[in-house]
Amino acid sequence: MEMEKLVSLCRRRGILFQSSEIYGGLNGFWDYGPLGVELKRNVKEAWWRDMVSAHDDLATLPGAPSPYEMTGLDCTIIMHPQVWKCSGHFDLFVDKMVDCRETKKRYRYDQVRGRWVEAKGEKIFVTTVAEDEGPEIERRALKHFKIRSKDADQLAWDGPLTTLDKIDLADFTKALAPEASELGTFTDPRDFNLMFPTTIGALAGEEGRAFLRPETAQGIFVNFKNVIDSSRVKVPVGIAQIGKSFRNEITPRNFTFRSREFEQMEIEFFCHPSQSADWYKYWRDRRMKWWQEIGLAGDRLILRDHHPDELSHYSTGTADIEYAFPFLPEGEYGELEGIAHRGDFDLRSHMEGKLDPNSCPLTLQLGEDGKPVHKGSGRDLTYRDDMTNERFTPHVIEPSAGADRGVLALLCEAYTEDTAPDDKGEDQTRVVMKFHPRIAPIKAAVFPLVKKDGMPEVAQDLYRAIKKKFPAFYDEKGAVGRRYRRQDEAGTPYCITVDGQTLQDNTVTMRDRDTLEQVRLKLDDVVAEIERRVTGE
Amino acid sequence: MEMEKLVSLCRRRGILFQSSEIYGGLNGFWDYGPLGVELKRNVKEAWWRDMVSAHDDLATLPGAPSPYEMTGLDCTIIMHPQVWKCSGHFDLFVDKMVDCRETKKRYRYDQVRGRWVEAKGEKIFVTTVAEDEGPEIERRALKHFKIRSKDADQLAWDGPLTTLDKIDLADFTKALAPEASELGTFTDPRDFNLMFPTTIGALAGEEGRAFLRPETAQGIFVNFKNVIDSSRVKVPVGIAQIGKSFRNEITPRNFTFRSREFEQMEIEFFCHPSQSADWYKYWRDRRMKWWQEIGLAGDRLILRDHHPDELSHYSTGTADIEYAFPFLPEGEYGELEGIAHRGDFDLRSHMEGKLDPNSCPLTLQLGEDGKPVHKGSGRDLTYRDDMTNERFTPHVIEPSAGADRGVLALLCEAYTEDTAPDDKGEDQTRVVMKFHPRIAPIKAAVFPLVKKDGMPEVAQDLYRAIKKKFPAFYDEKGAVGRRYRRQDEAGTPYCITVDGQTLQDNTVTMRDRDTLEQVRLKLDDVVAEIERRVTGE
Repeated sequence: MEMEKLVSLCRRRGILFQSSEIYGGLNGFWDYGPLGVELKRNVKEAWWRDMVSAHDDLATLPGAPSPYEMTGLDCTIIMHPQVWKCSGHFDLFVDKMVDCRETKKRYRYDQVRGRWVEAKGEKIFVTTVAEDEGPEIERRALKHFKIRSKDADQLAWDGPLTTLDKIDLADFTKALAPEASELGTFTDPRDFNLMFPTTIGALAGEEGRAFLRPETAQGIFVNFKNVIDSSRVKVPVGIAQIGKSFRNEITPRNFTFRSREFEQMEIEFFCHPSQSADWYKYWRDRRMKWWQEIGLAGDRLILRDHHPDELSHYSTGTADIEYAFPFLPEGEYGELEGIAHRGDFDLRSHMEGKLDPNSCPLTLQLGEDGKPVHKGSGRDLTYRDDMTNERFTPHVIEPSAGADRGVLALLCEAYTEDTAPDDKGEDQTRVVMKFHPRIAPIKAAVFPLVKKDGMPEVAQDLYRAIKKKFPAFYDEKGAVGRRYRRQDEAGTPYCITVDGQTLQDNTVTMRDRDTLEQVRLKLDDVVAEIERRVTGE
Repeated sequence: MEMEKLVSLCRRRGILFQSSEIYGGLNGFWDYGPLGVELKRNVKEAWWRDMVSAHDDLATLPGAPSPYEMTGLDCTIIMHPQVWKCSGHFDLFVDKMVDCRETKKRYRYDQVRGRWVEAKGEKIFVTTVAEDEGPEIERRALKHFKIRSKDADQLAWDGPLTTLDKIDLADFTKALAPEASELGTFTDPRDFNLMFPTTIGALAGEEGRAFLRPETAQGIFVNFKNVIDSSRVKVPVGIAQIGKSFRNEITPRNFTFRSREFEQMEIEFFCHPSQSADWYKYWRDRRMKWWQEIGLAGDRLILRDHHPDELSHYSTGTADIEYAFPFLPEGEYGELEGIAHRGDFDLRSHMEGKLDPNSCPLTLQLGEDGKPVHKGSGRDLTYRDDMTNERFTPHVIEPSAGADRGVLALLCEAYTEDTAPDDKGEDQTRVVMKFHPRIAPIKAAVFPLVKKDGMPEVAQDLYRAIKKKFPAFYDEKGAVGRRYRRQDEAGTPYCITVDGQTLQDNTVTMRDRDTLEQVRLKLDDVVAEIERRVTGE
């Protein structure tokens, strides 16, 4: 599937629009249209139901070390700035950037690609950020050395394609920045914090400085004690939250994959340290299975365990659930969800703010007295087990999923071109969005075969009955074949047609979007049958 | 009901916490705890279902001029800054503020209250922002004039209590600011824009300047054409959105009523100008009825039509749905929702940005050439009616509701103290949250009468069956009476008890939270009975 086709369908059918499009659009921000909002709502609802409200907290679920509870939370996007000091985001949530003094453009240090090339006794590092880097670098090298294309063999390439952050800073004088005409126009790399800044209240000074949250997780950590004290939940317990987060990405790209405003579905699962390795394994497998259940059942979805070298010092395990998005090069995958074993790092950071300087990134910044600058809250966030009387700082397993990335993967997975017969029975190419019925924006469409003989009235009654339970669509315009195609593009799993026979025996046809199979069933059974198929029960 | 009791219950039972509490809290920001998040979800879901997904778009609903369609949208919080130029928020969404040069405190111009007082041949205006303004102003006046309390009759009061914005600027030299010791320390009033500023991208200059949306409405207006073009909807059509908005209130107060981060449920309803007055009436009545249906059925809820003098020049009608919140003085009401007839003001602003300078606030700022500074998008946002071929700029009716304010009103309405018998049959005071079953966070609790004879197993099976449909709670700890009380405080409408008789005849008791009535019903009928009562069908 080519990405352009999906992007075009998303716009045409009202799934996604670029934010503020009538004003030229805003890079890295996307609005969900009428179909998109239902699709995303379904993903979020499925997650909340499966993880929180319908969770069986009395049984030991397959793979889990014990029964556990799940509860929810909804925190603000703007939090106290000290939260980000203690979480480490204020100091460490940065991308390295370089500027070009000539073009005034700014780049992520690790995203400028280039190669060493020698000609006419001079050796330079030619860079680009273009997609087709090979030809582009050659073109620029030829131009710099004033060599014609047919004499390209005069260029001597020294080493493979690499990124700017892999060459010595001293060599920046020999680097040719993208679109620049002179050498040595890159500045030294600088840190750029990815949190969106804002100001609270009327005062413009430091007191009012604040940030939009870059993740929903910290709202859960700082409320851990509130939840334990106000609910009757016991560890092991998961606290779940769905909400928007913001990251000031330098180069948002790949449709909604890397956007600046996005929605997360996060669980912080608190457990006894001795059980945390088992819980990590449980959540890793459970979350993989969930994505498969809602429609990512093919081999484009993978579970990738991080190599021990990739792990944070406090983590004994991290896994990513990744999807082979069509905009990525063959063999590459993009992250949908990360499942991380975070130990007691976060609770301790918010308690003490005085972790071991040799192991904790928080303490990279020491005050004049040699002590850490970042004090925690001073609150006791430990937990006492009623049964054993043991007091401990829970370990945390964090399954952190991207709602927008999930929707994007489901869109990519659903997009299918196949053939289906038209109204004359001739096979025609069709575009069909094969969403899992549970997440399809519209569950059913109802058509009267023709606009007479009382068919519309019967169809409308059925439509209303379905709509009480699920989003539905009524369509009486045009040939039935064309109505089917419109629903195929919207991903509607079931189309029900009221025809001449309906008026005689109260039966209708239900057509399956994927198999194209049509079954006849009683008018009175339609709602229950859709419910059965959608819920899978 | 005293507000303190509700605030305390909200904290104790995990409904609402102050944001970032472990770091001292953040003024004007509130987190929803485990019960609160379910309550708010239910309000939002009820709104979306009743307004959008289950809306009957084929019939003319009672009071409506014609059938109409409803569709949804979900836009970003950060939008192009030009949106706010054209909407007028950049220039006009301001509060007037005054500073005190002595105390360095800042106040809303219209919220500083004071009285003129004369003594010892000097006349001054004494101000305060304290709740008990009368005694506080007298106390400060006595202190200023160095008069003892027993000689208070030496003070001559000139006129009633008023606000600072009602006195002449020239008289500021005679004003005593709150907590100040000297006269004349107020600065002149200044405009303070209530939008939260931020910066997009790596560049710190003007190009990256942006704002968090102060309302969800503008996202709908700028996407109007996208929705029309990509969906098969026709005018009259409502586009609905639920999402967070941000207002940098100078003095957030009254629990969650005036907070800086809040969630809106907004509809922009687009119709033909000739029908807009009728649609306005329809929406005004429909929205009032909706709040009554989900639990604000008492006389604390009122519908208040704005007086013609209060209306914007472009509006032919505005009404507020208001609630008598217990933190307001007797006879005062706070706004839950506004229903405004906005004419074609918003679409025209985003199209042309060159409205009549004599009538449109947008054009208050003119450029050097005398023309409006704020250009619109230049896009055509008019609509062509397929049937009549008429092209027109739709008029808009805007029912704009606050989700957090709705939750707060429902909490206030639900809070009840009455008496109920304890386990010994003696009447005791109980606190009960009488939520409408549809919005109650937990729909049912299941108790085994005792922890033996197989009762827990039966109760657990029932609990699981309910949980597949609704949030439910299982409790086997303590006397049944105490378990009932815990659920009363959480507002759980139905408590089901498995007792000795259950094991004989497969029946259980279901206790109604409000009437305390207990009925016996078959185990197999429990789920359907709860569903029937919750959905009211």
